[in-house]
Amino acid sequence: MKILLVGASGTLGRAVAANLGERHAVIGAGRSSGDHRVDLRDEASVRALFDATGPLDAIVATTGSVHFGPLAGMTAAQFDQGLQDKLLGQVRLVLIGQHHLRDAGSITLTTGILADQPIRLGANATAVNAAIEGFARAAACELPRGLRINVVSPSVLAEAWDAYRDFFPGFEAVPAARAALAYQRSVEGVQTGQVYKVW
Amino acid sequence: MKILLVGASGTLGRAVAANLGERHAVIGAGRSSGDHRVDLRDEASVRALFDATGPLDAIVATTGSVHFGPLAGMTAAQFDQGLQDKLLGQVRLVLIGQHHLRDAGSITLTTGILADQPIRLGANATAVNAAIEGFARAAACELPRGLRINVVSPSVLAEAWDAYRDFFPGFEAVPAARAALAYQRSVEGVQTGQVYKVW
Repeated sequence: MKILLVGASGTLGRAVAANLGERHAVIGAGRSSGDHRVDLRDEASVRALFDATGPLDAIVATTGSVHFGPLAGMTAAQFDQGLQDKLLGQVRLVLIGQHHLRDAGSITLTTGILADQPIRLGANATAVNAAIEGFARAAACELPRGLRINVVSPSVLAEAWDAYRDFFPGFEAVPAARAALAYQRSVEGVQTGQVYKVW
Repeated sequence: MKILLVGASGTLGRAVAANLGERHAVIGAGRSSGDHRVDLRDEASVRALFDATGPLDAIVATTGSVHFGPLAGMTAAQFDQGLQDKLLGQVRLVLIGQHHLRDAGSITLTTGILADQPIRLGANATAVNAAIEGFARAAACELPRGLRINVVSPSVLAEAWDAYRDFFPGFEAVPAARAALAYQRSVEGVQTGQVYKVW
């Protein structure tokens, strides 16, 4: 398969590239590194990416940021940052990318455990992740030509545990290589509209 | 209780006002009618609303629009309409309103059955509703002073069934007065972080 991986240089993206790269041609893209540069917040940038890749068998996104901060001091503008980046960025990739997938191709997006398990400072993250899962649940019902869409929801990555452990009391971290298996399941499997939880 | 109801002139809002108004002082607000005018997309407008109401015991929102259209032709700009209106509008009401609630006050937001049950043309609606439910799930864990937040997710309203029935094949409509009971349960009850499904 010919697979586009957006967010290829991140901790998760590198693990996904290592897994999928064993059997497929993986094209890496990212904001500041990779085979192609792309800013998912920019419509023209996403269009240019697909013009450059040509037809694809799978699109995988392991990218997107949200706002972390106390609810008591949160502003709508801060909340909108996560909407515009992790949520609308991945949605834009789908809305444009669906037309560049070959029949029976797949799309795999990334959310995270906060969709289901809130933490302090994480209201924006929970909302954004829940929205992405909702979007995939609905989009799966409308995609034509056997196209599929799934979401991977990993727990905190073991590789990032030292930086984030104080925000995730009692959570179990998962190695990125284990999370990468869920992307493989989505890309090489047959399901659609699924959320693969890696916790 | 002194209750602010945003969206008071809509079909659902009128039913909620009728229910809560039997026992409480309900202040109605809306974009073009009500005791107060407010545009939830406008930060200054929301701030002015709370300056006008003074301290409250409950905030209820029965308002917000999303984009309906085929996934194949949907643009990120169209998708963002629902994010800015129904999602960020209600979130803005919470972020500002939390500071105008008396101790043990409550907030009740509105989603809809599409959060769980997608329909054709409804990818934006499912994502937006899921995000609001995620936001409430997380915000409930952070609100201080006994403040509570819940969501009501009604099915299509019986009063709107003739206009929408073709989009909801096999769905059961619910009378607005029955949906209004869930708002009563949220405002007068003790739970927080709940999604009251009226289907």
